[in-house]
Amino acid sequence: MGMVTSTLHRRLTRSAAALDSPQTQLTEFHRWFNDRVDADKSRIDIIEFDRLNGWHFHPDTGNLTHESGRFFTVEGLSTDMPGAPVEHWEQPILHQPEIGILGILVKDFAGIPHFLMQAKMEPGNHGPLQISPTVQATRSNYTRVHRGKPVPYLEYFQHPDRHHILADTRQSEQGTWFLRKRNRNMLIEVSPDTDIPLLDGYRWLTLGQIRHLLTHDNLINMDSRSVLALLPHPPANHHGTPYLDEADHEALHTHGGDHKRKADARSRQDSVHPDPDIHSWITTQRTERTVTTQRIPLKNLPHWHQTPHRITHETGRYFNVMAVDVTTHNREIARWTQPMIEPHGPGVAAFLLAHHEGTPHVLVQARAEPGYTDTVELAPTIQYTPRNYAHLPAHHQPPHLDHLTPGSPHRTLYDTLLSEEGGRFYHADNRYLIIETALNPDHETPDHRWISLPQLQQLAHHSHYLNIETRTLLTCLHTLHQPAGG
Amino acid sequence: MGMVTSTLHRRLTRSAAALDSPQTQLTEFHRWFNDRVDADKSRIDIIEFDRLNGWHFHPDTGNLTHESGRFFTVEGLSTDMPGAPVEHWEQPILHQPEIGILGILVKDFAGIPHFLMQAKMEPGNHGPLQISPTVQATRSNYTRVHRGKPVPYLEYFQHPDRHHILADTRQSEQGTWFLRKRNRNMLIEVSPDTDIPLLDGYRWLTLGQIRHLLTHDNLINMDSRSVLALLPHPPANHHGTPYLDEADHEALHTHGGDHKRKADARSRQDSVHPDPDIHSWITTQRTERTVTTQRIPLKNLPHWHQTPHRITHETGRYFNVMAVDVTTHNREIARWTQPMIEPHGPGVAAFLLAHHEGTPHVLVQARAEPGYTDTVELAPTIQYTPRNYAHLPAHHQPPHLDHLTPGSPHRTLYDTLLSEEGGRFYHADNRYLIIETALNPDHETPDHRWISLPQLQQLAHHSHYLNIETRTLLTCLHTLHQPAGG
Repeated sequence: MGMVTSTLHRRLTRSAAALDSPQTQLTEFHRWFNDRVDADKSRIDIIEFDRLNGWHFHPDTGNLTHESGRFFTVEGLSTDMPGAPVEHWEQPILHQPEIGILGILVKDFAGIPHFLMQAKMEPGNHGPLQISPTVQATRSNYTRVHRGKPVPYLEYFQHPDRHHILADTRQSEQGTWFLRKRNRNMLIEVSPDTDIPLLDGYRWLTLGQIRHLLTHDNLINMDSRSVLALLPHPPANHHGTPYLDEADHEALHTHGGDHKRKADARSRQDSVHPDPDIHSWITTQRTERTVTTQRIPLKNLPHWHQTPHRITHETGRYFNVMAVDVTTHNREIARWTQPMIEPHGPGVAAFLLAHHEGTPHVLVQARAEPGYTDTVELAPTIQYTPRNYAHLPAHHQPPHLDHLTPGSPHRTLYDTLLSEEGGRFYHADNRYLIIETALNPDHETPDHRWISLPQLQQLAHHSHYLNIETRTLLTCLHTLHQPAGG
Repeated sequence: MGMVTSTLHRRLTRSAAALDSPQTQLTEFHRWFNDRVDADKSRIDIIEFDRLNGWHFHPDTGNLTHESGRFFTVEGLSTDMPGAPVEHWEQPILHQPEIGILGILVKDFAGIPHFLMQAKMEPGNHGPLQISPTVQATRSNYTRVHRGKPVPYLEYFQHPDRHHILADTRQSEQGTWFLRKRNRNMLIEVSPDTDIPLLDGYRWLTLGQIRHLLTHDNLINMDSRSVLALLPHPPANHHGTPYLDEADHEALHTHGGDHKRKADARSRQDSVHPDPDIHSWITTQRTERTVTTQRIPLKNLPHWHQTPHRITHETGRYFNVMAVDVTTHNREIARWTQPMIEPHGPGVAAFLLAHHEGTPHVLVQARAEPGYTDTVELAPTIQYTPRNYAHLPAHHQPPHLDHLTPGSPHRTLYDTLLSEEGGRFYHADNRYLIIETALNPDHETPDHRWISLPQLQQLAHHSHYLNIETRTLLTCLHTLHQPAGG
């Protein structure tokens, strides 16, 4: 079940073509955003654990918990993953069973859909301001456990059936740092005559502007990328170029929905693997791989050491648990302390992109992470942190690394540094890449498959298929569309 | 992502039209099946627990387990389900974390797809022979923990990618009796020139023959119904009749796939609720309902009493745990004992069916059961065991029961008694009904939605959406198609 209607598609194509709009001029946006960065008085200080306020290590388990019992806990996890480069390990993990809301409000201005985005401070971000969704709220946030200010615009996402629902699905987050974490990803459109007050710190952006901003390092935050992955892409054409020129695309659609439906059906038929084969491959992966996890006390982790201000692995690899003291002025509360995960990054996440009869395909990887709800999700072709693999032998290095070698004959279409969740992860950056190559069946391994963009987008509307890194790259693929006349 | 191609559709339409075939004449099938029933020497004796062989109550927990540690265990489960008619309870439950295979082999004879079905004895069945899939094997079965005969035809399902995959997805089973049980449901087609030996106890049946047999009480077993739910239905026409006449349908398809694709797109546009609204409703249900379960020792269940031959609830409601001694001649092993669940049925599972602009819709219910993997699945309009509700006040009776009242103005299109899994459940029968009514938006409650048949079929290709009772009814909907000239 897809969400695409030809009318929506036509409108999004117009939004993608609009690099400026009466709501927000792109140059004015940059000035506004830079002014906010300059004016930002936030302070993020790394502190010792015993200066955490409201958080403590539980005397029995050593788990790091909040006195309210809400937000999240830092616990231990023991994982058995037969066949993986490391088959058994223990680690700290964030446990946050609540399902929060990540929502973007959409509204037409003069027939052009705009997205209500926020310049938001998060302690883990480089910046520390980034562009976030209209609403980004844990359940603790919006039930106001911390007794802060109410969450603006929340009401549109609490009663989605009163508006036009473009997408609404639970999606996973990092399975190496979060235990079965899901957030509700929502795209909700209000009618053009709805009066939406524009609060300080928010701007209406077109899809064209968002695409442009996606090519900037550390600007569009993870939650925005996750929600935007639910937007449809224009269908591919059949002349071997990655995407239609937007003007052609617009022309195609002014003749009605039939072209769109035919193009959709055609795209799916042009997939390297038919839909049932993709489903069967995922079913095989989820049936035959056994991933067993057990929550254990944080104080019982062999190989992890606790100092007054860090919990670290004895090798210095993977990540640390640490704590920050945050002072700010543009969040629901003005000062707080919290634990965070500090990875030893940066990581790399890359899609190989190729065309089969004019239809774009990416090489996805079936990847098991201990925190996933359903064993395996579809990850980018390459997803790894080089520092964590440096000590492993060649046959345990991820496949396809040769495509990242400088001077390789492949064409790099996208190469941008982006931050992961700044509310939980401290300076967690990944370098996201899209690399164009020829479609080579030999690139497939038991864990890699060429999957078409229409197939990937269908799966995005269901939970537990596309991991957060794949969803980021699905959003970044938008930047490869050529704007009209551009 | 759907599995339907127009070629497959055309072939299935031919198979549905074939009530006889050179492979199997329907009258000969009935004679063959009745002869097997008459010749069946199976004995199923209800025994005391202490006569179980290889099974014992664990001294610490009281859980009923097999000495191999395989097959399944009978454990205790504690459930909290705020808002349900009963908000907290404890119960015995079957725990079987392995994922077994339910597979039907498909092969064209003279251009007509046939399905390889088996007359199989299961101790819980009324009969006790019923028509089962080609392969119906727990992982313990096919890894031969019980050291019995090998499972016939298993090889086609262990390497599905060597054949034509029609469907392959994990599906849930009864969430009130099983803890997170899933089986792999597979439809695998071999090429017409593959030589498949026809073993004793198996027959190749057309879709038309299967449809006919689905109208017989207790004949097509649960696993067959579950797998067959993955088959496409012909698209609806636009003249208000439930389904196309098969001959018209055939004629439509001989002109190529474009008609099919247009009809598909048209059907989905004619759904009462657009796809994103259905997704959002499911997401809301899964986000806002909290179902908390905890495995507990079987011997710690308040309100459940153990006698030498039964574990029963003090009210006499719900179900018993009991044990059987089975002697047979047509299974992998000739004699065994095992525990079973014996419900206090029969139950009722009913779809309200209505048309919206020519497209069939059914009223599905978002239903939480403690054993579901993902909180809520889509159940029939009505799914209940009358005896278990007799003591509850009127406002806790299931909605829509008035449609079942004799003499109501609605048209009963299907009314057949069918057995649930005879390998685990003793005489567990449900009366399955399809009742035609006018499409009334007022029939929707917060937990009920009208969903179109094409939408339901799309969801069938993903795990954890359609519960086992809905999948049975989706298969029974096949019987409403009119055979050519019939």
